[in-house]
Amino acid sequence: MDIRRIFGANVRRYRIAAGLSQEAVAVKMGVDRAYVSGMERGQQNVTLLTMWHLAEALDVRPVDLLDETVKKGEK
Amino acid sequence: MDIRRIFGANVRRYRIAAGLSQEAVAVKMGVDRAYVSGMERGQQNVTLLTMWHLAEALDVRPVDLLDETVKKGEK
Repeated sequence: MDIRRIFGANVRRYRIAAGLSQEAVAVKMGVDRAYVSGMERGQQNVTLLTMWHLAEALDVRPVDLLDETVKKGEK
Repeated sequence: MDIRRIFGANVRRYRIAAGLSQEAVAVKMGVDRAYVSGMERGQQNVTLLTMWHLAEALDVRPVDLLDETVKKGEK
C-alpha cells in the first residue's frame, strides 16, 4: 500500500482514538481542515516536520503514523 | 531530538549496515550524493514518498527510518 495511504489511515485512527475532530487537529497544527482531510485520504505527501507536528497534535510518536499493520478504512 | 536528525541517523545506520556508499544510495534513488549526505546530517525535510523510496533503496521499512532508539553519531 502507498505510504501516503498508510500514513492517512493511521492519522485517522489516532485522531478518532483521541476523540478529536479534523477541525480540532487543524487548529492544533495551524493548518486548514481540508489539509487534514487530504492527509487522511492519503492525498498529501507530507514532510518529516509536518509528520512531527501532527504526531504532537495527536499525542503519538511519529513512528506510530507509519505503522503498516493498520487496515485501510479501519475505524 | 529533531525528527530530521533521528531520520538521518537511521539512514546512515542502515546504509552502512547494507554496505552501501552514499553514492550508491544516490544512484538507486536517482538523486545527487549531496542530497543523501544532507539527509544523513539531518538537514533535509524529506517527504513520505522520498522516505518510501529511500527505505526501498536500503531494503528496510519506512517505519524503521523513524526509529527513535538510534543514538546520534551511532556507527
